[in-house]
Amino acid sequence: MQTPHTPAKHTRMRTVHSAAAMQRLARAWRRKGVRVGLVPTMGFLHDGHLSLVRRARKAVGPRGVVVLSLYVNPAQFAAAEDFSLYPRDLPRDTRLCRDAGVDVLFAPDDAQMYPAAAGGAFSTFVEETALTQTLEGRSRPTHFRGVTTIVAKLLNLVLPDVAVFGAKDFQQAAVIRRMVRDLNFPATLVVAPTVRERVGLALSSRNRYLTSVERPQATILWRAIGHARARVRATKRAVSSKRLKQELHALIATQPAARVDYLEFFEADTLSPTATVGRGTHLALAVFIGKTRLIDNGRM
Amino acid sequence: MQTPHTPAKHTRMRTVHSAAAMQRLARAWRRKGVRVGLVPTMGFLHDGHLSLVRRARKAVGPRGVVVLSLYVNPAQFAAAEDFSLYPRDLPRDTRLCRDAGVDVLFAPDDAQMYPAAAGGAFSTFVEETALTQTLEGRSRPTHFRGVTTIVAKLLNLVLPDVAVFGAKDFQQAAVIRRMVRDLNFPATLVVAPTVRERVGLALSSRNRYLTSVERPQATILWRAIGHARARVRATKRAVSSKRLKQELHALIATQPAARVDYLEFFEADTLSPTATVGRGTHLALAVFIGKTRLIDNGRM
Repeated sequence: MQTPHTPAKHTRMRTVHSAAAMQRLARAWRRKGVRVGLVPTMGFLHDGHLSLVRRARKAVGPRGVVVLSLYVNPAQFAAAEDFSLYPRDLPRDTRLCRDAGVDVLFAPDDAQMYPAAAGGAFSTFVEETALTQTLEGRSRPTHFRGVTTIVAKLLNLVLPDVAVFGAKDFQQAAVIRRMVRDLNFPATLVVAPTVRERVGLALSSRNRYLTSVERPQATILWRAIGHARARVRATKRAVSSKRLKQELHALIATQPAARVDYLEFFEADTLSPTATVGRGTHLALAVFIGKTRLIDNGRM
Repeated sequence: MQTPHTPAKHTRMRTVHSAAAMQRLARAWRRKGVRVGLVPTMGFLHDGHLSLVRRARKAVGPRGVVVLSLYVNPAQFAAAEDFSLYPRDLPRDTRLCRDAGVDVLFAPDDAQMYPAAAGGAFSTFVEETALTQTLEGRSRPTHFRGVTTIVAKLLNLVLPDVAVFGAKDFQQAAVIRRMVRDLNFPATLVVAPTVRERVGLALSSRNRYLTSVERPQATILWRAIGHARARVRATKRAVSSKRLKQELHALIATQPAARVDYLEFFEADTLSPTATVGRGTHLALAVFIGKTRLIDNGRM
């Protein structure tokens, strides 16, 4: 797919490191009536991120601006998680953004995002209290507080008309949608489909942690979703969640490096677990492949 | 002081009840580059509120718009507090706003502010975790979560350049200032001085609860501040907080209807209690006069 940008424009991509400078730019766009699309990322970009950039471009048009934010947010990692190891490569990300037609790469550092200014350190958090109680939220108790807080900040700094998130983080998108609605942020949320390798593995920056032995086993998340979907579509009767979960656990156990963290069927709107599975029920799962924790989800 | 409005403009004040309509208006102003000032209130307006309207007008100029929001926010009242009794008089408030040159009176109801829409009830809160741990926050544990959440919503619905708060709610202003900084809301906060009756009583909608016997006793908050200030200014040495607090407790106890809820000396920036009191130290206090809880504060 061709972007509506000329190469001449690509080379004019700006990289902004200062939060204040980012907000000044955003306010100037606002005064000029320029439409703004935001793609929040933690960097180490892959084709999934670039599909979000294309989606943002589609939303704001060739005369709008697309901002990709790149920030590995410490507040969404727990102490034992992979924050310090999380892959980073700003020069490569900068190239990819320029080639993808991003207008502004917003790459703040921790001092910009969590300043310990006069009068005390950072102390305000945004917390969604319902949708965060299951799935990822149960496995990673402080994760979503970090996510909603940083996204609120990014919305206020970039002032986008449209913010684009990936469907791989299904619960994250649901939580942010709820936050945007509850706090009346003047932005539209778009959730773009998960991009996958040909073998089904959802693209993720964390895939780079996988060894060559683990990599083929990592497709088990996608195969589990496919198995569940086939089982549901093979019958007109509702299938028991409990029984189907047992089958999926058994299927995943065939991969020696795999260990299920959670695996749940639920209603897409409320994230409430369902006792039976039918068409439209959603499945989300988190599976450790060796030391690497991967997530995926799909609609039945 | 004359407002820069002609009577003709006054009569064009709009009252908006819908949150979506408010945000549409705000976005239209934004596109036109109109400066917007917000005065958040719980209604039952008095001269203190009207001084905030004048301050907002000064900030946005005659061609800007001043929005006064009027919403008795249930989330900032605890179960045992006076939410249902809180005085309300929309016709009178509407008249006062029109006379004061307010452009838009935003008066949403609970269904507008806390909608239980498809996909579940309201579940996102903004929480400041440092400055809220003392004073009002200690006496009213869920109060500030309600305040910061509703102010975040109002900032997103009205999109003001400037939001004006009263100094009577000193801690509230500090907490909101911290929230605006931490979450990068693109608005400037202005804190306007407390307006007082000639006898020193700070104007408050809750003053109307006072009986004729209690009313003269309610000036004890202001007299306590004056006493402390005189004691500090009478000496060049630092005064012990503990000792001065004892004096103030004794002074307040001279009023039969008065009962101290809290009384604290602290640094204005951090709200940290201080062991000694000098010039610049701040004093805040909450005192029950009969069943009515009043607050006040002052700089030494």
